[in-house]
Formats: sequence, C-alpha cells, structure tokens
Amino acid sequence: MQELHIKVPGTSETSYRIAIGSGLLGSVWSAVDMAFAKCRRFVITDASVAAAGHLNTLLQGRDAPTYVIHPAGEQSKNIDTVVAIVEAMERAYLGRDTLVMALGGGTVGDIAGFAAAIFKRGVPVVQIPTTTLAQADSAIGGKTGVDSSISKNAFGAFWHPAAVFIDVATLQTLDERQFRAGLVESVKHGLIADQGYFEFIETHLDAILDRDMNTLETLARYNCTIKGRVVEEDPLEKNERRVLNYGHTVGHAVEAAGDYALLHGEAIAVGMIAAGLIEVELGLSKPDRLDRVRRVLEKLGVPVKLPPHLAEDRVIDVMRHDKKAVDQWPRFVLLDQIGQVHCENGQYAVQVGRKIVEKVLTKLK
Amino acid sequence: MQELHIKVPGTSETSYRIAIGSGLLGSVWSAVDMAFAKCRRFVITDASVAAAGHLNTLLQGRDAPTYVIHPAGEQSKNIDTVVAIVEAMERAYLGRDTLVMALGGGTVGDIAGFAAAIFKRGVPVVQIPTTTLAQADSAIGGKTGVDSSISKNAFGAFWHPAAVFIDVATLQTLDERQFRAGLVESVKHGLIADQGYFEFIETHLDAILDRDMNTLETLARYNCTIKGRVVEEDPLEKNERRVLNYGHTVGHAVEAAGDYALLHGEAIAVGMIAAGLIEVELGLSKPDRLDRVRRVLEKLGVPVKLPPHLAEDRVIDVMRHDKKAVDQWPRFVLLDQIGQVHCENGQYAVQVGRKIVEKVLTKLK
Repeated sequence: MQELHIKVPGTSETSYRIAIGSGLLGSVWSAVDMAFAKCRRFVITDASVAAAGHLNTLLQGRDAPTYVIHPAGEQSKNIDTVVAIVEAMERAYLGRDTLVMALGGGTVGDIAGFAAAIFKRGVPVVQIPTTTLAQADSAIGGKTGVDSSISKNAFGAFWHPAAVFIDVATLQTLDERQFRAGLVESVKHGLIADQGYFEFIETHLDAILDRDMNTLETLARYNCTIKGRVVEEDPLEKNERRVLNYGHTVGHAVEAAGDYALLHGEAIAVGMIAAGLIEVELGLSKPDRLDRVRRVLEKLGVPVKLPPHLAEDRVIDVMRHDKKAVDQWPRFVLLDQIGQVHCENGQYAVQVGRKIVEKVLTKLK
Repeated sequence: MQELHIKVPGTSETSYRIAIGSGLLGSVWSAVDMAFAKCRRFVITDASVAAAGHLNTLLQGRDAPTYVIHPAGEQSKNIDTVVAIVEAMERAYLGRDTLVMALGGGTVGDIAGFAAAIFKRGVPVVQIPTTTLAQADSAIGGKTGVDSSISKNAFGAFWHPAAVFIDVATLQTLDERQFRAGLVESVKHGLIADQGYFEFIETHLDAILDRDMNTLETLARYNCTIKGRVVEEDPLEKNERRVLNYGHTVGHAVEAAGDYALLHGEAIAVGMIAAGLIEVELGLSKPDRLDRVRRVLEKLGVPVKLPPHLAEDRVIDVMRHDKKAVDQWPRFVLLDQIGQVHCENGQYAVQVGRKIVEKVLTKLK
C-alpha cells in the first residue's frame, strides 16, 4: 500500500460589510454595483415582503430576475423551494457570476443563502433582512438551510454573506406579533454579552415598541456587534458560538413540542425564563435578576410561561432528541451575571440534572 | 448610515490521506476506525458496485446503514437522489457526527460527496473510488454535484474528502468499455504535467489493458500526485486548475451534442485530438507529437474522430454555451510540449479563432 497526502489550502481570512441605516433600501442596488460590478443579480424574496412594497423599493423600477417565495413563512422552507429557485436561476441563464440578493425575514435568508451555497458549487449572497429576528440574528453568521419532510434544517451549509444591508425602516411594515417576538434575540444578546445593552433595552422599551428609527438603529448596531464578535471567534459552532443558544434548549423544545404554534422568539422567551430559573436553582443567580428579565419580556408581550395545553413530559421528550444532546440529555447555556455566560472547564454548554429541569418546568406552568 | 465589518476567519490548512493498494478494500473499515472513532458511518454505493461484491468486501459482514443508488449511472445523478439519501440518513437517526463512505464510480462520488456537504450543514466523506475514471480523477479535488432537470451539475459544492482509499483490485470487475474510457484521464495527466508518465503509459499499454495490478498502482500514484498538485495550487478553479480541462472544451461539446452516447473519457479522447490539431495549426506542435497521442488512444480503443452522425455545427453551438465561455466563445487549454501546458499572459485557457476550430472539426470527421 502506498500513501499520498493532499493539502487542502486554508481559505484566507476575509470580511464582509454590514451597513445599518434608516431608509437605505432604495440605494442598496447601487451600493452593490460598486462591490460586485461583474455579477448578474438574482433577487429572492417572499410574497409578504413583496406585498409590503420592499421589493419595489429595492428594485427602483429596475428589471431583474426575481423569485418570490409563495406562501411566505416556514411552510415554504423546504428543499422543493430550493430546487425551484435553482431551476429559475438556470432558466434565467445565470452562471457562476451570479450574485443572489436575499430580501426578507429569517426564512427567506435561510432559503436564499442555501440556494446560493449550492448553485453551481456556490455563488455570493447579499442579505437584506427585513424583520427584527433576521436583523438581530439570522442574517449574520452564515448558517443557512431548509427542512426535509422529517426534520428542520436537515439540508444546509455554512455560507457567509458577501454583505449585509439592514434598513430599520423595513420594520415599520412588520406585523406587531412578529416585531415583538424578534426582539427577544436582542434581549438575549444583552444577557449573554453586554450588561450595558440589556440596560439600554430596559430603559428604551417604549421607544423600541414605538419603532423609533434611531433607537432601532442602535439596537441593530449592538446586535451585529455582539453576534459578529461571537461568530468571528467560532464560525463553525465548535464551542463559543453556543452562547448564542441561551434560552434555546428549553425554547426549541417548547417550539417543537407545541408544533410551532409559538413564533421562534416567543418560545425562546419561555426558554430564557427556564434558564433563569435553573440559574436560581444552581445558586448562580438571585431571583431579582430573573425578575428584571421577566419584566422586560412581559413588556414585550411575549410568553413567559409554558402554553396552557403543553405537558412538561412532551417538552422533556423533545429535549432528549436535541441535536446537541449527549447521552439523550441536552446541555444548557447559563449566566453568571447579566452580560456574562457561565463557563465550566472551558465549556459554555453545561450539564444540568434532570430533576432540576423537571422542577423548573413545573414552575413554568 | 453606520457600517460594521465582520471577519470571516480563514480555515486552517489541512490535508487528507490517499491510500493506494491492491486488495485493501477489506481493511478500509478498520483503517477508518482509527481516524474517525467517534463518527457513525453511512455507506453510499450503487446497484452495480453492490452486485460486483465490493459492498460486501467493504462491510466484511458488518451491519451499517447503507443507501444503494438504483439504477447505477448518470440517470440517478440528480437532486431527487440526494433528497432520498438525506432522508434515509435522518431515518437512521444520524446527526452531525456522521461519516459518509462513498463506494463507487464518479457518479456515486459526486452524489455522496454532495449529500455529505449539505447534510446538517456538512459532514465528512471518505471516497472509495472503484473505476478508472474515479480513481484517476473525480475522487480527488473536492468537486461534488448533481444535475437539475435543466443542466448538469446545477447543484453542487466544493467538499474535499476526509480521506481517499484506492483499491486497484476493484477495477478487475469493471466492464471493458468503462475501464478503457476512464484511462483517457490518465493519458491527459501525462500530457499536461509529466512527460515521463506519458512515456510510462506508452510503454506499458499491454500491462495496463491486462489490468496488471502493479502497473495500475503505478498509474494511481501518478494520477493522484498530478491531480493533487494541481488542486493544491488552485482549489476553487480560479486559473491553474483549468489545465485539467485539456481536451474538455471540444470533448464536453462532443459529449453533450451527442446526447451523452459517448462515455466522458471517450468524448475527452476526441477533444484531446482536437486540441492537438489546434496546436499544429498554431505552430505549437509538429504532427508527430499528435501521432504519438493518437497511437496511445487508438490502442486504448477509444474514439479519435467525431461520431459519424454528429454535425460540426451542433458541436460549435454547444461550445458557445460552455460555462467558461467569454462572449459566447470558449477558451482552450493547449500544450507547448508533452508534459507542459501553454500559458499566455499567465492564463492557461487561451483564445483560439473560430475559423481554426471549424477547420479542426472538419479534420475530425
């Protein structure tokens, strides 16, 4: 037997730009012209975003091949939609010199990012998020993917955007429930990384809920800075990136066990209360810290308890199938204090006994 | 407007092992045990390879979740097969700790490599090629992909293997036409990179066609060394990797214009003769060099002329749609001498006037 060794060259470090503003959507097309002059564009959006007028604002009367996902929402986040998009790109005679522009919420970003990742072995994507969730979270970090008939994000790729444009003016058309649920990830960013940011949210809740543009721009800047810093440290989610899963162990389980009747942010709100209760049980926190978090979430109008008809057993059962579970029991991200994640032996996701979790779930009823 | 910049960290340089031997298939499973102890395996192969007994040799009586592509061949190289594979992996309760083992020819490697690239945002793949084509070419280099209903390799990813195991004994069961066609890429490697290798093939044609194991091992070592070196220099096909497309401009067009009646290697043989004729026209070569190449290909029993019913116009038309075409006219890789590619202004794919190409196609009738 003979052996050879083939080097896989490391890709060189690059960076991408995040532009944040109010009313910048109309100038995104020209801004992209400079950086991607040689690329032909393909726009991906969904029926809701198009109906809200944002597609017209982006295009400014220009003609560009566009795919409008219909219906908008999670039900279209599947491999069939990606296949339809890739075939639409082929019918538009697009090649490897294509630039995908993803205009919409988290679902559009996930679908379009994944389509870009696998079209002719990968073309760049510009993310233009239009929801509180996507602007705070999903547009940054390079996670893309769609569901199979069996599970969520069964298909996916890490595919970093070539640029991100955040126009907080697009949030004005977002329905109230989506707007509020998406803010939960902002609260999470304060909790895991920046006490000053958490206090800013606490003291500006009225302006946030009034959708004051300046305040929303400040939120976007905090969110992108925090998420960007975490992703830079750990792009492929080996360890540190797990801090972003604060509230997600119970949150994901509540979301799935409730058959996705709650929005993602709503379920994560319940999950963050669960994490806070675990912190109290373990002596990492006093109840007054949890009260501060609960007050913010209540003001946002998101749930802070389990939905009435959801049994704790069902939540436990889903947690045991968590994709990050070890020996069928998940790990938890917990806080030492607001702005600082608890770390044990270098690990940010730690073990918590089943008895404690069961007790906490009972308190969430 | 505010701006932030997010770093995308460069991945660190890694390498993968290529093991070459005769009769090593039965020990691949244990060899992988050491390097990927924590991974659960999923085997992907096709009906022909399984029928030839190679799947049993790999498994050695072990039980492992396996997907057998049926029917074998290009007609299964599509996104539906990849979806079926990913769903089979989910039904086997596999997660991110999966290792895909791809056992088969180029089609199996392309499908399985792509499935690994997109399963839960990417899991490693071990390539175990069983054809002359896959052992010489497609198992190394990280190109994966499948066809859409509209074009070839519309879906794909660059996904380098975690290891490659080449057992030349698996070539004993390959049908004669496939065996011979796959050797054309070996001839190409000699022509573009190593005069000594070309001369080795010239002088060992009888042993090669007798499938002498030692000779086939020598070929594998030459092929992997040459392809590995080119891919290391240019993993994403920006320039130097294009030398691997020698014979492919006309070859691909002949393959497509003839509705894939010719095997890939057979079409590339015609394309290499076309490239040789262009070299003579441009004064890069004397006819005796082309005669040497033609003698080798004729001994291999692959075509050295256009198929009788294929019109030159049809070939020209397909070339104008080549994905690497500029202004609807493709570039050509040409040789200065055996073992050395012609380079103009740092480019390995050069312009050739249409009149010359038309004249050469006439000579290929």
